[in-house]
Amino acid sequence: MGIIVQKFGGTSVGSPEKIGNVASRVIQEKQNGHDIVVVVSAMGKTTDHLVSLAKEITDRPNKREMDMLLTTGEQVTVALLSMALTEKGYDAISFTGWQAGIQTESVHSNARITHIDSNQVQQQLNNGKIVVVAGFQGASIEQQITTLGRGGSDTTAVALAAALKADKCDIYTDVTGVFTTDPRFIKGARKLSAISYDEMLELANLGAGVLHPRAVEFAKNYQVPLEVRSSMENERGTIIEEETSMEQNLVVRGIAFEDQVTRVSILGLPNELTTLSTIFSTLAKHSINVDIIIQSTTSRETTSISFSVKTSDLEDTIKVLEQYKQQLNYKKIESESGLSKVSIVGSGMISNPGVAAEMFDVLANKGISVKMVSTSEIKVSTVVSQEHMVQAVEALHEAFQLSKQEATV
Amino acid sequence: MGIIVQKFGGTSVGSPEKIGNVASRVIQEKQNGHDIVVVVSAMGKTTDHLVSLAKEITDRPNKREMDMLLTTGEQVTVALLSMALTEKGYDAISFTGWQAGIQTESVHSNARITHIDSNQVQQQLNNGKIVVVAGFQGASIEQQITTLGRGGSDTTAVALAAALKADKCDIYTDVTGVFTTDPRFIKGARKLSAISYDEMLELANLGAGVLHPRAVEFAKNYQVPLEVRSSMENERGTIIEEETSMEQNLVVRGIAFEDQVTRVSILGLPNELTTLSTIFSTLAKHSINVDIIIQSTTSRETTSISFSVKTSDLEDTIKVLEQYKQQLNYKKIESESGLSKVSIVGSGMISNPGVAAEMFDVLANKGISVKMVSTSEIKVSTVVSQEHMVQAVEALHEAFQLSKQEATV
Repeated sequence: MGIIVQKFGGTSVGSPEKIGNVASRVIQEKQNGHDIVVVVSAMGKTTDHLVSLAKEITDRPNKREMDMLLTTGEQVTVALLSMALTEKGYDAISFTGWQAGIQTESVHSNARITHIDSNQVQQQLNNGKIVVVAGFQGASIEQQITTLGRGGSDTTAVALAAALKADKCDIYTDVTGVFTTDPRFIKGARKLSAISYDEMLELANLGAGVLHPRAVEFAKNYQVPLEVRSSMENERGTIIEEETSMEQNLVVRGIAFEDQVTRVSILGLPNELTTLSTIFSTLAKHSINVDIIIQSTTSRETTSISFSVKTSDLEDTIKVLEQYKQQLNYKKIESESGLSKVSIVGSGMISNPGVAAEMFDVLANKGISVKMVSTSEIKVSTVVSQEHMVQAVEALHEAFQLSKQEATV
Repeated sequence: MGIIVQKFGGTSVGSPEKIGNVASRVIQEKQNGHDIVVVVSAMGKTTDHLVSLAKEITDRPNKREMDMLLTTGEQVTVALLSMALTEKGYDAISFTGWQAGIQTESVHSNARITHIDSNQVQQQLNNGKIVVVAGFQGASIEQQITTLGRGGSDTTAVALAAALKADKCDIYTDVTGVFTTDPRFIKGARKLSAISYDEMLELANLGAGVLHPRAVEFAKNYQVPLEVRSSMENERGTIIEEETSMEQNLVVRGIAFEDQVTRVSILGLPNELTTLSTIFSTLAKHSINVDIIIQSTTSRETTSISFSVKTSDLEDTIKVLEQYKQQLNYKKIESESGLSKVSIVGSGMISNPGVAAEMFDVLANKGISVKMVSTSEIKVSTVVSQEHMVQAVEALHEAFQLSKQEATV
């Protein structure tokens, strides 16, 4: 009977009634004999409300003060959940991030956790209490209140699980687990019973959106077993751990996809050592997130570089590149919007050469032309026309047999 | 150019727009060359909203968790006010109670401040910043978030002013100062330019309601000059300090009154040493606030005790007394509702014997019968019928010449 850390997101705690439901859910696990730490986010629309208050005052709120403002959201939830647990007859105590010993960098709005002093939490668990911790927040060594940025509550939960040497960390969400692909678009999508950290990382980065990549990274680094499961239904979710004991036979574990992708090409660049770094550090400085990058050298003197960005970033991208035209010394810029990215992910690829080839083959057979390709050890990403996106995913889902029921252990 | 601590209550910061107005008010004083610390309460209805959330979850919320919940209210305000100041071009930084070094007893919902470590605040003032501090809250030595109970933000402001050796502490409120009596009921009521701590204490305790008694006590103990003034208008308010340099000629400084008073009499009590303490410790244990207490011994063996309570506490009072009838061993209880308390306050009374007699004389001349009397060095309280209350106050206000314009210094 060890420690279990449970995390519930903003939708799950959206009203006093829902907080009551979460309390019942927590108690269920407590009755199984575990020590429970619960990490919660701000209630439903609270964060939006706070942001709109700030906007009424200023268009460029100070980041430190935004952290001060937004962290009240989770503080409200922890107090209410602790009350709900007590009301149902279970001893509980709530902690803010700083009270739970979550120390972060001295950075606002997107700080990383540097250290967790879990003594307070451990002591209250030893007293038999259910400990409720505010997600998304911590404090710097200078006692400034900080936030962890997007997906911060997931990270809080995983980091606490690591610090407490918890048996596992359950991430309760509005889906029942991690799917082979997005079930909202692809009929054959199937819930996975298990997936590795690396596969989850690739899927998360590719927009599968269930778990924040930072939380998965943290879990991988500290070998914390995660389970993604539904806060509404009682069924098992998807286990995320180092070695997935099941489904070893599957080469491809999941297919991720996203639309609104644009390809930008810079033609006629001088073929110099610093060309790449100059371009991408310039874009990064202007907060433009570049995804796939491809370089093709066409002559000894000049080179061309293509990369993909979100379509919403296209205008800024062009503006920045034109601003630096003289410094970068390129001939011209081309761009193509209306694209999408389709990726297959699976750690089995490492030992199965030819998976990429099979993917291209499947797409070619459907008459889908591939505009860009990028590969990693456990992932192959392709950029295709947006109108072909769903068709491509369906074909790949079928070709890699992802709809098939997995073998039970 | 020293430090000024300013305190703004919940109504003054009730909306982003009002917070903007407060920011302008703060900047005005900053432009006079002072270092400014601003203490604020939760926005208007925020506390009520949080309380109602808790009520949806439980009828008996844990006090620690209520503190956790309610303190988010001021945290929101400090962040927004700090943003508003920055927006107007002034460097500002917000602090929660614990960040501002406000240490309290390890008690929830009504903790007293035990110590203030003002280093953080002082350091930020030295950096030229306006420091915005969450009122009403602190932390215990065990790092638990605590609240200071009713009037807590006033106390925070005064305590900070004391710790920082501020030149003065300005309490901004919805009235323009302290009046000779309640201007909502008595036409001749006049704003005082100055009043002593003790007089203010008596008036505050007597229901004048502008400033919390604990804050006044704190100010008196640390000799912090206070000014009660309007957050809407720019005129001077009322200075509260040890020696009022003005109006020395006034024997009576103000008249306080409250209705909904009930007299309770316990007849035929055994005349024993412990009788008084037994009765009133029993009532206190049941959270019944007793105001005036009068004992009259009618024989060697028995005694009678009368006291006044709020009419809303009458039912509980009777219930408690009946419950302890055997132990207290009294003959019977009588009560009279529909009463009010009218009190005259002034430190000049100490050196002016006969003030009480003059008061009784004024009331008698108006045909108002006095049901109870209680006196202190700077106060005489009388209990009269509720229907005579306003008439009594008016007569006293006139007799003690309170409507007269005070001499300018």
